[in-house]
Amino acid sequence: MTKPIWIKHAAQLATLATDVKGPRSKEDASNLGLIENGSLWIEDGIIQAVGTTEELEERYKDKLAQADILDASNHLVTPGLVDPHTHVVYGGSREREFEMRLEGATYMEIMNAGGGIHATARMTREATEAELMEQTICRLNSFLEHGVTTVEGKSGYGMNIKTELKQLRVMKKLQEQHAIDLVPTFMGAHAVPPEFKGREDEFVEHLINDMLPVVAAEKLAEFNDVFCEKGVFTPEQSERILEVGKEYGLIPKIHADEIEPYGGAELAAKVGAISAEHLLKASDEGIEAMAKAGTIACLLPATALYLREEAAQGRKMIDAGVPVAISTDCNPGSSPTTSMPLVMNLACISMRMTPAEALTAATYNAACAINREKQIGSLEAGKQADVVLWNVKNYQELQYLFGVNHVHSVWKKGVRVVSGKQTKANVNAHVFSE
Amino acid sequence: MTKPIWIKHAAQLATLATDVKGPRSKEDASNLGLIENGSLWIEDGIIQAVGTTEELEERYKDKLAQADILDASNHLVTPGLVDPHTHVVYGGSREREFEMRLEGATYMEIMNAGGGIHATARMTREATEAELMEQTICRLNSFLEHGVTTVEGKSGYGMNIKTELKQLRVMKKLQEQHAIDLVPTFMGAHAVPPEFKGREDEFVEHLINDMLPVVAAEKLAEFNDVFCEKGVFTPEQSERILEVGKEYGLIPKIHADEIEPYGGAELAAKVGAISAEHLLKASDEGIEAMAKAGTIACLLPATALYLREEAAQGRKMIDAGVPVAISTDCNPGSSPTTSMPLVMNLACISMRMTPAEALTAATYNAACAINREKQIGSLEAGKQADVVLWNVKNYQELQYLFGVNHVHSVWKKGVRVVSGKQTKANVNAHVFSE
Repeated sequence: MTKPIWIKHAAQLATLATDVKGPRSKEDASNLGLIENGSLWIEDGIIQAVGTTEELEERYKDKLAQADILDASNHLVTPGLVDPHTHVVYGGSREREFEMRLEGATYMEIMNAGGGIHATARMTREATEAELMEQTICRLNSFLEHGVTTVEGKSGYGMNIKTELKQLRVMKKLQEQHAIDLVPTFMGAHAVPPEFKGREDEFVEHLINDMLPVVAAEKLAEFNDVFCEKGVFTPEQSERILEVGKEYGLIPKIHADEIEPYGGAELAAKVGAISAEHLLKASDEGIEAMAKAGTIACLLPATALYLREEAAQGRKMIDAGVPVAISTDCNPGSSPTTSMPLVMNLACISMRMTPAEALTAATYNAACAINREKQIGSLEAGKQADVVLWNVKNYQELQYLFGVNHVHSVWKKGVRVVSGKQTKANVNAHVFSE
Repeated sequence: MTKPIWIKHAAQLATLATDVKGPRSKEDASNLGLIENGSLWIEDGIIQAVGTTEELEERYKDKLAQADILDASNHLVTPGLVDPHTHVVYGGSREREFEMRLEGATYMEIMNAGGGIHATARMTREATEAELMEQTICRLNSFLEHGVTTVEGKSGYGMNIKTELKQLRVMKKLQEQHAIDLVPTFMGAHAVPPEFKGREDEFVEHLINDMLPVVAAEKLAEFNDVFCEKGVFTPEQSERILEVGKEYGLIPKIHADEIEPYGGAELAAKVGAISAEHLLKASDEGIEAMAKAGTIACLLPATALYLREEAAQGRKMIDAGVPVAISTDCNPGSSPTTSMPLVMNLACISMRMTPAEALTAATYNAACAINREKQIGSLEAGKQADVVLWNVKNYQELQYLFGVNHVHSVWKKGVRVVSGKQTKANVNAHVFSE
């Protein structure tokens, strides 16, 4: 038995607890369930009670002496952030390619120098499981330091069965070993591998006949994702992969309408995908179809920034009734970052979402996008004690003071895994005496 | 006498030391003076020697036993970053205004609710010197944590003599008390105060006759900056303020061509300004004039991002022979951030500068922009020991892995003021045992 934890006197506790069940849009996306002078009681990794400091002090008066007490005065407290879309398991690094591009190299010059997605595929194929574990752990630690306590991760840099399974098994091991919860997605259909060039339909059959059954039998994934884009997989191919996946119990997701309007949003609604990803070029009809079907839009504004693209229309989607989640898209090509705080800032700056909507998108709606809203995404009695204490006093400041990681402390299942970051309380540490 | 410090075995030491004296452009901006397996010897706050680990080990073999030794294997080491353009001394916070704008409030609604620059002017006027000190210290601490060891700061939220002097005196006190070096700029001509609306020329005379002499007599500033923009100060008014400032020994700077092309870049070249700031809309003629005059372009890509403007043409300016420095523009309205690492990332992403050019712009060229290149901005014997150790292995990775503060440790004048950040060496800290 661990000691109870009492986090008290939070200047602002954003519980995200509301009466609305399921993903939130329109005005519901702005309801943060705020409590001033808020307070949380945690035992055995589970939130036992949420309320004002006075309420919990009265309720637990007989247990106060045994508890670890943390005074959160002047601090915002929120649920742990959830990143619902990453490619966090990959081999190698492509910083030299980044430099080449800025030095003026063309796409073909980079490809000829061995760059691009196939460089990552090659390095991921070559990496041992232990090497992939080590690299992924570095990234997961960085996620934790940025307040992220649950991360979805996709396979998809293998493009062959051996490496796809290696990526998924790495996630399974890390789910057992690492503090972060890792939620696995099979994405064999991330790109057409060079071996199948010009034989895309054969690759689809290979994926359906040889990959999906193994992934399902070993219970290596919960979701099945497809890159539905011109030149990658057609809507018909994507639908077939997702429908067969459903027979195996895999919930559909779609990388949709990233580069041009291609019917991806519409397809997401049609197949009952839990979420559609990217959506930079989603059509009005696609947005309407998603709103009707209740499909979550998983938007990736850091990727848009890195690629110098106009961000997705987050504002418009929320107003149209689509629930919006946001994510880093952490990957070595188009978004090498682990900063969900920056992604929240960009949701406001680039997608004109409000500070409240950005926080909902990074917590409760993100949990919904990976089917975890019963366990995480809000601070409510009975849920996992995944909690972040921030070096700001309210949720507006969290988005306004941008580009800075304001995390002070992070608890994962009631264990404090990040602590001791700079706070306003010890500002004098850097003041030299005269 | 403090112990000598030996930082050794750096995977990559970017000294920024080259044969070029003065601000760097074209190919000179890419020369980082790299040393593999690099090494620094520090005594009494001054860099004594720079070289390979073997060279310094031989040279200081009799002193090794007394030294504090830091093994920088797998780490990049650079000069402390320099932020050459901030409004870091201000009162209050405007996060609610940020939210109102995203909720759809118009500019006039925000103004009527008491927002905008005049809100900061009001809160800065109302703040006591002690309150301003406390707020500024928080921001300076955050700068240090982001690897910034020298910060330029401007007055300009007073718009009356009392408050302008209060801001400058706060900087003078903090220069004595805080680890960061603060370099003060007088910017009485930041906006026309409400009291002088419609009587702009009278305000200019007031500034020249009543403010400049006091600032000069108390030695409260080294630079004199003007917001030369349509609706603020004309080129003629700006020129007069800067020319009179020169008589008092103040070096000119200009906020130029931010909103539209207005001849600001040309004026900077004409009056011999050390730098011109913003330059989003600088004309080709202005860029050419700056190149000829050797005026430094101080570019602020985080501000462009926050305002959703196209960033300045950093790539074009460097190619045209203009030396480029970069800065946060830290201020409560258009860039509430302290992250120079993000600004370097944005220099690459938004302005198409190379990773090497971005580092030059944030160190040596930034030092030139505040007339400090003899003391800081590069790692050379005789210079101040302002040093950053990064959690990346080379300068490309520093820009490629974006949106994350990769600072591991910071030394200011040989004193370690930031240390113990997460490193790849302790990745297991977050791995739970099975």
